[in-house]
Amino acid sequence: MSSVLTTLEATILARRGGDPDASYAARLFAAGRPKIAQKLGEEAVETVIASLSGDAAAVTGEAADLLFHLTMLLADCGVPVANVLAELERRQGVSGIAEKAARKAG
Amino acid sequence: MSSVLTTLEATILARRGGDPDASYAARLFAAGRPKIAQKLGEEAVETVIASLSGDAAAVTGEAADLLFHLTMLLADCGVPVANVLAELERRQGVSGIAEKAARKAG
Amino acid sequence: MSSVLTTLEATILARRGGDPDASYAARLFAAGRPKIAQKLGEEAVETVIASLSGDAAAVTGEAADLLFHLTMLLADCGVPVANVLAELERRQGVSGIAEKAARKAG
Amino acid sequence: MSSVLTTLEATILARRGGDPDASYAARLFAAGRPKIAQKLGEEAVETVIASLSGDAAAVTGEAADLLFHLTMLLADCGVPVANVLAELERRQGVSGIAEKAARKAG
Repeated sequence: MSSVLTTLEATILARRGGDPDASYAARLFAAGRPKIAQKLGEEAVETVIASLSGDAAAVTGEAADLLFHLTMLLADCGVPVANVLAELERRQGVSGIAEKAARKAG
Repeated sequence: MSSVLTTLEATILARRGGDPDASYAARLFAAGRPKIAQKLGEEAVETVIASLSGDAAAVTGEAADLLFHLTMLLADCGVPVANVLAELERRQGVSGIAEKAARKAG
Repeated sequence: MSSVLTTLEATILARRGGDPDASYAARLFAAGRPKIAQKLGEEAVETVIASLSGDAAAVTGEAADLLFHLTMLLADCGVPVANVLAELERRQGVSGIAEKAARKAG
Repeated sequence: MSSVLTTLEATILARRGGDPDASYAARLFAAGRPKIAQKLGEEAVETVIASLSGDAAAVTGEAADLLFHLTMLLADCGVPVANVLAELERRQGVSGIAEKAARKAG
């Protein structure tokens, strides 16, 4: 199984320790966790503001930036994206509920 | 193709307009976009703080909360999660680069 | 010289180590710096959202909450409010510029 | 009565509508409220991160930036700093409690 986030995670991890001049991810890893965390916080603020403006294109772009920096921060913390997605499924009981939702929609 | 986030999105959308007493998602939709955006911002702050504490379990939990509320906010804005993931792929050129990363790792 | 913020700072410091049941400040100090920092972040998000709603009363209330928690965080870090205000004056060169502004307005 | 924040407010308001090339405040006003709110959010994130690093000089600098951008946002919303400080006093009952705190400390 693969997904956009786990693929991105693999890409990001492959760039770790690479040339900071050649890759944004390598540069951000080199800057350290407080800087990565700061970027995550900034992108969240921008997502909040875009959502209140009602501009769908801006929301899409800011949410993508937020997911990118969340994946970076998880990588820096040694937390696999798969663990976060598993926790999300566990909390929401997504599997079962989504099946019901699909049946309702079908 | 499906993924945890798109499955969660379907679940959330199925709950929209439902009984606020029976579902957190229904309650949050009823509270309105500023409240959903506020929750996203708060979870981002908690993710930042957990990452700096170095507690992997806390990071996992906060990141899951962040993804849940991001999916809620996107749903409220009418932005499909798939569009955000497509934008993320487009920006990072994930497909091609990830293939190279996989080859390096292989 | 005194000001609302330095007076608040004195009050807060006097409550430090006090009964958590009797004072919000004592309770927040007992919870620790990550919790105080989290509250600051949350109040900033609420101030951002209130400002975009254009509700002056909400902005006033959220900004007051933000200043309260900033004063708490500074106290916990051992940074005097006076130092922050001095830095603010130094950066903006407030004294001189404000004199000119006053003359223009006069 | 005057204070650093109200003096800064007067300076900022005097620059409103001025040359964006000559003044950061004029430039930020011209960029609009969402941009000012974004800067406030970013400075709050940086203050949170600095506080967790325990670097007093960084905390001082970030807190000064936060206060500057809060004053800008209040000015853009037409909310006088004095109103926020009055609300802060009202909520905390600063005057009376501080007197007692001073007597205790004396």
